[in-house]
Amino acid sequence: MTVKYTDKVASHGGFGSFFKLLVRWRGSVYKMVWQDMLAYIVMYYFISLIYRFALSEDHKRTFESLVIHCARFRSLIPVSFVLGFYVSLVVSRWWGTYQTLPWPSSLVIAVRTYIPGQDEESKMVRAAILRYVNLTIALTFAMISPAVKKRLPSLHHLVAAGYLTESERVILENLEKKSKLHKTWIPIAWACKTVQKARKKDVIQSDSDQRMIITEIMSLKSRCGGLLGYSEYNIPLVYTQVVTIAVYSFFFFSLLGEQYLDPNKLYPGHGIDLYFPFFAFLQVFFYIGWIKVAEALLNPFGEDDHDFEFNLMLQGHVEMCILLSEAEQDELPQYLRDSPE
Amino acid sequence: MTVKYTDKVASHGGFGSFFKLLVRWRGSVYKMVWQDMLAYIVMYYFISLIYRFALSEDHKRTFESLVIHCARFRSLIPVSFVLGFYVSLVVSRWWGTYQTLPWPSSLVIAVRTYIPGQDEESKMVRAAILRYVNLTIALTFAMISPAVKKRLPSLHHLVAAGYLTESERVILENLEKKSKLHKTWIPIAWACKTVQKARKKDVIQSDSDQRMIITEIMSLKSRCGGLLGYSEYNIPLVYTQVVTIAVYSFFFFSLLGEQYLDPNKLYPGHGIDLYFPFFAFLQVFFYIGWIKVAEALLNPFGEDDHDFEFNLMLQGHVEMCILLSEAEQDELPQYLRDSPE
Amino acid sequence: MTVKYTDKVASHGGFGSFFKLLVRWRGSVYKMVWQDMLAYIVMYYFISLIYRFALSEDHKRTFESLVIHCARFRSLIPVSFVLGFYVSLVVSRWWGTYQTLPWPSSLVIAVRTYIPGQDEESKMVRAAILRYVNLTIALTFAMISPAVKKRLPSLHHLVAAGYLTESERVILENLEKKSKLHKTWIPIAWACKTVQKARKKDVIQSDSDQRMIITEIMSLKSRCGGLLGYSEYNIPLVYTQVVTIAVYSFFFFSLLGEQYLDPNKLYPGHGIDLYFPFFAFLQVFFYIGWIKVAEALLNPFGEDDHDFEFNLMLQGHVEMCILLSEAEQDELPQYLRDSPE
Amino acid sequence: MTVKYTDKVASHGGFGSFFKLLVRWRGSVYKMVWQDMLAYIVMYYFISLIYRFALSEDHKRTFESLVIHCARFRSLIPVSFVLGFYVSLVVSRWWGTYQTLPWPSSLVIAVRTYIPGQDEESKMVRAAILRYVNLTIALTFAMISPAVKKRLPSLHHLVAAGYLTESERVILENLEKKSKLHKTWIPIAWACKTVQKARKKDVIQSDSDQRMIITEIMSLKSRCGGLLGYSEYNIPLVYTQVVTIAVYSFFFFSLLGEQYLDPNKLYPGHGIDLYFPFFAFLQVFFYIGWIKVAEALLNPFGEDDHDFEFNLMLQGHVEMCILLSEAEQDELPQYLRDSPE
Amino acid sequence: MTVKYTDKVASHGGFGSFFKLLVRWRGSVYKMVWQDMLAYIVMYYFISLIYRFALSEDHKRTFESLVIHCARFRSLIPVSFVLGFYVSLVVSRWWGTYQTLPWPSSLVIAVRTYIPGQDEESKMVRAAILRYVNLTIALTFAMISPAVKKRLPSLHHLVAAGYLTESERVILENLEKKSKLHKTWIPIAWACKTVQKARKKDVIQSDSDQRMIITEIMSLKSRCGGLLGYSEYNIPLVYTQVVTIAVYSFFFFSLLGEQYLDPNKLYPGHGIDLYFPFFAFLQVFFYIGWIKVAEALLNPFGEDDHDFEFNLMLQGHVEMCILLSEAEQDELPQYLRDSPE
Repeated sequence: MTVKYTDKVASHGGFGSFFKLLVRWRGSVYKMVWQDMLAYIVMYYFISLIYRFALSEDHKRTFESLVIHCARFRSLIPVSFVLGFYVSLVVSRWWGTYQTLPWPSSLVIAVRTYIPGQDEESKMVRAAILRYVNLTIALTFAMISPAVKKRLPSLHHLVAAGYLTESERVILENLEKKSKLHKTWIPIAWACKTVQKARKKDVIQSDSDQRMIITEIMSLKSRCGGLLGYSEYNIPLVYTQVVTIAVYSFFFFSLLGEQYLDPNKLYPGHGIDLYFPFFAFLQVFFYIGWIKVAEALLNPFGEDDHDFEFNLMLQGHVEMCILLSEAEQDELPQYLRDSPE
Repeated sequence: MTVKYTDKVASHGGFGSFFKLLVRWRGSVYKMVWQDMLAYIVMYYFISLIYRFALSEDHKRTFESLVIHCARFRSLIPVSFVLGFYVSLVVSRWWGTYQTLPWPSSLVIAVRTYIPGQDEESKMVRAAILRYVNLTIALTFAMISPAVKKRLPSLHHLVAAGYLTESERVILENLEKKSKLHKTWIPIAWACKTVQKARKKDVIQSDSDQRMIITEIMSLKSRCGGLLGYSEYNIPLVYTQVVTIAVYSFFFFSLLGEQYLDPNKLYPGHGIDLYFPFFAFLQVFFYIGWIKVAEALLNPFGEDDHDFEFNLMLQGHVEMCILLSEAEQDELPQYLRDSPE
Repeated sequence: MTVKYTDKVASHGGFGSFFKLLVRWRGSVYKMVWQDMLAYIVMYYFISLIYRFALSEDHKRTFESLVIHCARFRSLIPVSFVLGFYVSLVVSRWWGTYQTLPWPSSLVIAVRTYIPGQDEESKMVRAAILRYVNLTIALTFAMISPAVKKRLPSLHHLVAAGYLTESERVILENLEKKSKLHKTWIPIAWACKTVQKARKKDVIQSDSDQRMIITEIMSLKSRCGGLLGYSEYNIPLVYTQVVTIAVYSFFFFSLLGEQYLDPNKLYPGHGIDLYFPFFAFLQVFFYIGWIKVAEALLNPFGEDDHDFEFNLMLQGHVEMCILLSEAEQDELPQYLRDSPE
Repeated sequence: MTVKYTDKVASHGGFGSFFKLLVRWRGSVYKMVWQDMLAYIVMYYFISLIYRFALSEDHKRTFESLVIHCARFRSLIPVSFVLGFYVSLVVSRWWGTYQTLPWPSSLVIAVRTYIPGQDEESKMVRAAILRYVNLTIALTFAMISPAVKKRLPSLHHLVAAGYLTESERVILENLEKKSKLHKTWIPIAWACKTVQKARKKDVIQSDSDQRMIITEIMSLKSRCGGLLGYSEYNIPLVYTQVVTIAVYSFFFFSLLGEQYLDPNKLYPGHGIDLYFPFFAFLQVFFYIGWIKVAEALLNPFGEDDHDFEFNLMLQGHVEMCILLSEAEQDELPQYLRDSPE
Repeated sequence: MTVKYTDKVASHGGFGSFFKLLVRWRGSVYKMVWQDMLAYIVMYYFISLIYRFALSEDHKRTFESLVIHCARFRSLIPVSFVLGFYVSLVVSRWWGTYQTLPWPSSLVIAVRTYIPGQDEESKMVRAAILRYVNLTIALTFAMISPAVKKRLPSLHHLVAAGYLTESERVILENLEKKSKLHKTWIPIAWACKTVQKARKKDVIQSDSDQRMIITEIMSLKSRCGGLLGYSEYNIPLVYTQVVTIAVYSFFFFSLLGEQYLDPNKLYPGHGIDLYFPFFAFLQVFFYIGWIKVAEALLNPFGEDDHDFEFNLMLQGHVEMCILLSEAEQDELPQYLRDSPE
């Protein structure tokens, strides 16, 4: 689930108003980086101890040269640059993905408005359209989200969950024999066909009304298609690899290059010897944290703290359909009730 | 409220034309950073005094090493980089939020144009549609803005404010039992239903007119939905934490690394000793100020100087509906008056 | 007025093809920065003269330390970074503003196409719609541009300029008593009403035609609304202040830090003593010039060389309406003339 | 084919969760850079061996001066800057290209919905429209993708692949004599004509239905046009050249500037002599990898690991048309079957 | 003409796959910078020779101080920064301009589909609409492109080129007396009028068809309007000046600051003396090349290698209109031919 936190900073209040954001665990940078940082510290002390206690004086000199050499190179890979551009890209794709998510509420309102009848057929048509569209959304989510796939691994599960009737399942399975392509658009086709049939039978009373419903259905289809695109064509692997290599090169160079050396040797920049590499630690923490922003958002289809909760969404969609569509007479303001016309 | 200032620079006028912008308090950077800067100064002098009067000579040497060590590291976290990208992102989201705000004026004009009748039913239909849409906007604002929530904490308050009739309140409360989902779209459904009913009774005289009104209603609904999205899915916490840690690390490193050292020790870059750390102060001021830009805009739903004034907007919307819709005959140009046709 | 210059570089021609751009005054960087640069030079020499002739040797040493200290800090505020991002933002808003400007030509063509009659009523309807829309544009421009406000300060002036009839002015003034909100959308409502009336009287012959005209009117309304938004919600003051402070800090640090010191003291980087601080001057010129880009575009509603010329636009709109709409028979190609049908 | 990898990081799992991404060959940075890096290493050792064994002492001194000179300049070309902006541009164009790809599924659903008849003529019309649109897509892909061009080099091949009838081929070839322009839009014109004819014969039953189909056809046309634009007007050559020269200058400077020098000479930064230039290697690897991101995405119309698979797409489009359109009665849910009305 | 090159890199092939791009002249960076670089070299050697042979020893010392002073300052203007942002802006405007170009093909298809008649009047209407729209495009291009202006300097030339009839020319010239505004939208008004007339005479058979044609016409009009905007409101002069001054300051500082000094003086960084300033040359080449990217794209309306070829486009538009519209019966697939219904 995406972690809400901005209500904490809705109104700023002086020094440290952002500090409140720092003392959280869920979805926090600490939770994401602690394993990397632990590894860093362990390796750092391991190297440090070898330098101090295991090396001969000659080897110590060589090691010191290596440390100084590393420190020089560490700054030559522009980690901050490549991270800045890369994270920008990842964040803008993450937001693009969010804005592509399908929400059926507009369709429910359209269906309810343009198919106002209270007879059995109208009710059946309304229910069928919404069920088909929810089915397409469920099929889409199952293709992109492992969590949904786990909950709805087969058509049988979709039947059990009420998205599909048994006879429709048979049809979809027969189609499976016909083509290996995904069947995500089949229910959309059914929904449109239902609308067209309803128009023919005057359940929908004008071409204009029919068009409005179809437009909403196709808009949801195009959102589902957009999601498949975001999932299928992610940022090219080569870019992600380049950035990862840059950051973890820095990580390893820092292990060597930030070792405290014997201050008595008077190496420039090595005039002090502390027990904990506080500054280097913070620097690595910063870069690892920055790349974790990308890692958290690169694939928002998983089950991380920052991923979209597709299972909850699916349930919300069905519930919203029920909430908005099954308007009993006593759930309507007076004027809108079907008076015995 | 957003602070207007650009009329001050509408026409530039030579040296210091931007200086006028600097001498303001409301919405200014001074107002936002003074607490942080005060803390900086207090801590700075505290450390300075300890160094000068409390430490032994030996400890002074250690402290001086530490200061030089800090100063070196301070520049190794690319605060300006990460801030540049982060603030860019925050500003573009802030503007995206602004552009998503719902304004009902187009709907009022559509309602007034396509439901021109002066009979009682036409008037009632017009009023109902606008009231329902304003209700949805009010419900949306109450979900995202603590200030609106404070003013309109319950359905009863919405009734008192005239957004809701008593009987509609009962309906909404009954629906609450049916589903825990937000009820924001219910009034939209009612508004659409009202339009459809009005079409059936020929209060709206053509399918085309009906479609134009529905399109405006749905456009307002999608803006409200967009606002909910901006509020729910903000910039991931991990990114904000990384930036905050970077800036405040700089803050604390600067406290140590920018201490004036005894010039007689001839440390490079420490050849001078001033009473006030003017340069370091300005530098910290700059970074803290820059992150305050982000802080001010990250959540524009609060009550800061830079936040959107949702309560004022809500009142403005209602007033605009009244201004634009209740056109008495004598408020119309001659040609447009209902002559006894 | 925006300054055209790109025809100068339409076809590049070897060395210095961009030089042609440098020798201009109107809208040039020189015109914008000369006052700042003059101030810089005066202050620079003032400080320099004091250093050389007024200070004692001891004070000279202190001054030299200060200069070296300043020079070190000058590079610690990342002026180029914050300017790069800030100017990017300002330029993209400036272009967004441009693309939001309302142009009535499409509406004129729609009105002329869908209300083709040559009878008195058709002519009156056409004229009224265009006048109302131009009135809204004029009211919008008067709200955002001081120049237009100066030319059209009151409704009386709008009457004089032909945007408003006397009786309509009275109506608008009565509305003023009713609500303090801006009246910008009232003429839009009138225009839509006029269209609807014309449809009812069959001056407009189909619902489809009516819809096309209304769509154009509403598109102009939404552009005017967009302009109001750009004017009202500019870049937050705090961001502009941070950038301004950064640049002018640099300005003042440079005054001190770039002073030529006595070369005989052998300070590193101070091996030369020139009469004119050519390099420092150019550097300050560059940063001041860069921020002037932002200053010129931040508020494009004024009367600078780079601002939009709203008064000219308003006149052009009216003229364009006349040019495109009042098609006499002999201004039409043969086929389009009204033959005695 | 685009390489999928994000399922590997759908849920992050502690230290090294990104490492999984590093151990891949297909679409990886290693596959793209190994030849450049091999060349680097060979040249590096070649120069190193000459320095160590072939040069006289005097020449060694000159060589050492040259190395130090190179190292200084290497950092003076801002490779990371220009690469950051350039790769941003390339990636955003690559994604723009993806979003422009035409997918016929919406058209199939529209055709099936609005031309519901099961008679021969309806079937023929449906098939013809889809075939014409697929033909346009195939012609477009053949213009931009060498791989498609190879598979479908002539109209004869299109006939064989079923996109074109023999008689239509003759028509297209006759048109070839008339104009040298591409014939990509001719089948779109035919498809629209078919729709119009079908409307006239009441195979399509309303203007509204006709409009919906035409809108979908024109949307596919505009996507094909967009693809042609992305292919024809790529990033200007001059920009690509500047970036390439910058990166490979760095490559060659690094060959010289990163040579290990005799540590006994005590050149600053040359205190160590390793057998393998590990740091320099990684640095060059990083920059070459980064530009390979651009190279991989600059022209997504080829046959690289990161290019779009136009041949597969074409086949998928045809199959999707069959899957979605040829709805036998038993492939429809009960309600939608043609009852003997 | 825009230079195509990406087919060269459609499939990458190992080391130096981008090298192929470097060995081109047309549209290349070499062609654009050779004059600047020649000037650089000439001036460089001129200064160098004066230093070596013309100056006295004392003057040499002063010169050397100056060189070192220059070298220090050269890096203080962030040329890469300002160039990065500026070129980004220019490239995005260039692509925006491309995407705004009007292509009449969709209109031709619409006209042909919705005005299907083979009678004389239908043919005349079709031809007139297309001619009027092409006339507007031609008038627009003549306003923004000097090359088109040269080919079509007056209305007489437009008559000769077939865009205008003699009688229409007279009308346009009479309008010239009425208003000084550009007449670009007049033919659009005529085209819409033609459509409306054709609808009235039932040459166009439904309101829906009429609307589709008008929408296409207005979309072309809005694209022409967009082009005029891109041409009129280019990047503000002040920004271009700041960037140009920054780059050429660097150019001149480099002339001085990169001079080889006598190595015997042991100035740091001046330990070598080469005949050719290879590194400085490359650096200047790089910056000049980068700004030439901007120069090439800043005004894409000229006659450079990178400019849009408006004359060719105009001819292509006319040819495309002929190709797509004049469908003889034997140019249509069997089903679409006009059978003697």
